[in-house]
Amino acid sequence: SRTMSSLSVPKPACLNKPFVAPHRFMFGPGPSNVPPRILEAGANPIIGHMHPEMFEIMSDIKSGIQYAFQTQNNLTFAVSGTGHTAMECALFNALEPGDGVLVAVNGIWGERATDMAERIGAKVNTISAPPGGCFTNDEIKKALSKHRPALMFLAHGESSTGVLHALDGIGDLCHQYGCLFLVDCVASMGGAPLYMDKQGIDILYTGSQKVLNAPPGSAPISFSPRACQKAFNRRTKPVSFFLDLAWLANYWGCDDKPARTYHHTGPVSAFYSLREALRMLAEEGLEESWERHRTVAEYFHSGLEDMGLKLFVKDKSSRLPTVTTILAPPGYDWKEITSFIMKTHNVEVSGGLGPSAGLVLRVGLMGCNSSRASVDMVLSAFRDALQHCHKSKV
Amino acid sequence: SRTMSSLSVPKPACLNKPFVAPHRFMFGPGPSNVPPRILEAGANPIIGHMHPEMFEIMSDIKSGIQYAFQTQNNLTFAVSGTGHTAMECALFNALEPGDGVLVAVNGIWGERATDMAERIGAKVNTISAPPGGCFTNDEIKKALSKHRPALMFLAHGESSTGVLHALDGIGDLCHQYGCLFLVDCVASMGGAPLYMDKQGIDILYTGSQKVLNAPPGSAPISFSPRACQKAFNRRTKPVSFFLDLAWLANYWGCDDKPARTYHHTGPVSAFYSLREALRMLAEEGLEESWERHRTVAEYFHSGLEDMGLKLFVKDKSSRLPTVTTILAPPGYDWKEITSFIMKTHNVEVSGGLGPSAGLVLRVGLMGCNSSRASVDMVLSAFRDALQHCHKSKV
Repeated sequence: SRTMSSLSVPKPACLNKPFVAPHRFMFGPGPSNVPPRILEAGANPIIGHMHPEMFEIMSDIKSGIQYAFQTQNNLTFAVSGTGHTAMECALFNALEPGDGVLVAVNGIWGERATDMAERIGAKVNTISAPPGGCFTNDEIKKALSKHRPALMFLAHGESSTGVLHALDGIGDLCHQYGCLFLVDCVASMGGAPLYMDKQGIDILYTGSQKVLNAPPGSAPISFSPRACQKAFNRRTKPVSFFLDLAWLANYWGCDDKPARTYHHTGPVSAFYSLREALRMLAEEGLEESWERHRTVAEYFHSGLEDMGLKLFVKDKSSRLPTVTTILAPPGYDWKEITSFIMKTHNVEVSGGLGPSAGLVLRVGLMGCNSSRASVDMVLSAFRDALQHCHKSKV
Repeated sequence: SRTMSSLSVPKPACLNKPFVAPHRFMFGPGPSNVPPRILEAGANPIIGHMHPEMFEIMSDIKSGIQYAFQTQNNLTFAVSGTGHTAMECALFNALEPGDGVLVAVNGIWGERATDMAERIGAKVNTISAPPGGCFTNDEIKKALSKHRPALMFLAHGESSTGVLHALDGIGDLCHQYGCLFLVDCVASMGGAPLYMDKQGIDILYTGSQKVLNAPPGSAPISFSPRACQKAFNRRTKPVSFFLDLAWLANYWGCDDKPARTYHHTGPVSAFYSLREALRMLAEEGLEESWERHRTVAEYFHSGLEDMGLKLFVKDKSSRLPTVTTILAPPGYDWKEITSFIMKTHNVEVSGGLGPSAGLVLRVGLMGCNSSRASVDMVLSAFRDALQHCHKSKV
């Protein structure tokens, strides 16, 4: 006979039914749609995180990232986490308490880098540009000269404002002042020209769920020899064991130890998907992908302007090809527009974020979503929304 | 005409071919096999990390974890990362620099908790038991009384040594001494009785890739009101923005704010799989799952002893039903045994870890792998290995 249950929390009824995700056009700033072959790769059976086949997959991922980042850096791998995890991996390992950091703030990513660096006891100085703006190399040089930081942070693709920041020359400036150059390319990698080695970038990271079109949950990162020099000669341990670069370097076979030691259990399925995503990028070719994102973005931007909508970023060369920011149409409630487009067209577009909240609509066309067909779909959805949503007399 | 390439790093040839993962019987200490319906759930199309359907999935996950942990705690969610990430989430939020911690070390998890707590400036005291051993409540009481820590760490399932630690009474002791009780149940949850609320556990976390049979990459965690009281009344910010409990509470709809703010992009696919895994646990029933793991482990242990193998944990009631440690058979090279079993039987079993390295073989039979059929397979693989591997005269 069945004994009486000792449980005080019963089975939740909400788990009785299975979940089937709706198909949706993911044209917000990420995550983007994941093509079937990447989803299928992720559904492969699980093998061990330290089986020889897994080490081969990790080695392939490393090669794929070296290609995508255009770097020869040996210490190139994927963090077992999201873009934010990679951001903390960079800061935790490069900085010690008391180190000076210069953060270029022209959107949410600079704000977040500031927050993260302050938490670990770094001394943060910032330079700021208004949302939609950039920094000149001269402004950066002055700030480097004034603050003499150990590290400078800059977002290549500022997804909150739709800005693509020029990178040429900044790495050299940083190195003149004995400073590491840390770049966030979460929103730009694969969608705009980027040359880690040539541009003198010391730490570069991205996410899996943008141009790469993999599910969120893994984050490519790379450290230059100069960055390794600092990270591996610390006086203090990084605050995180999980993100300790010495452990991660060993796990990814990037150190000179003969064997790999168990560190943590990597997200096996996420690495399967990431490998397939990098494979698709290599199949198309990096330059071909950059060019496609550029021409699709131009086609999109013309279409928006033809419709009377205004782009938030005035300077054409500073427009991020992957995430477009559009001035919230005057007289409309932007939330009604995004809801209408989701409800009526099954298309996600989003509002602003951080310093651009309330000011803009954001459309992300990344990886497989960067096509004329997607643009036509978004433009017709906007046309429909402007016709059907409430407009006050301005 | 095509312009000359500006790339200095060419496409990697290793990405030319697709990857197909082999099927393997994952009878090591994790990750375990993932049943087709969980893999399929994870291959659902991606939706937004803040879409209403995603918030529903997260709410279902929360209910599923409350059931699996047997807790009414409101602050119950899944960390976007692995078990190690959850471990750091617990320590980063519960501890401030200078706080005292008592770590019960009887295997690798206590060692790692010590390492993590020291990195963030906590003052760690340890009590130690030899590998395979446990602590009496009296030993714990004495240590609490002597060190007066703010937090005590204990692993419920010590996967490195195969020990299941009794929990009754320890929560009460901790609370008598004004101390939080933090328990790691990565290897035990779902496989052995555990009652978070009744046992006075203040912070409890597990991983997705053990009894739950989901891919690695998400980690259930729960905080008691007492733990929240400490975590939300800190003088200092936690070192990690990504793991800051106030942000995570809001992301998971566990605070009293009217809206959710963008914190990070959760691993959408991993949450799909985790929901399905929790659904399967609820379908079977928690007590039924505990009982199945218990009877299968007993059947396994008898079979091993009948074969002349010796169990590493002497005390029967301290044997972890999910991960069995077997004394490395005298005269054999344990590495040859695990390789032989993998090569000949397509079965993963593993060696020791940390303090048990070189001493034991470890077999994990977790979730769907906990069955008499799996036991028979492992026993016959061992029989075969003992016959065919080299044996020295001892």
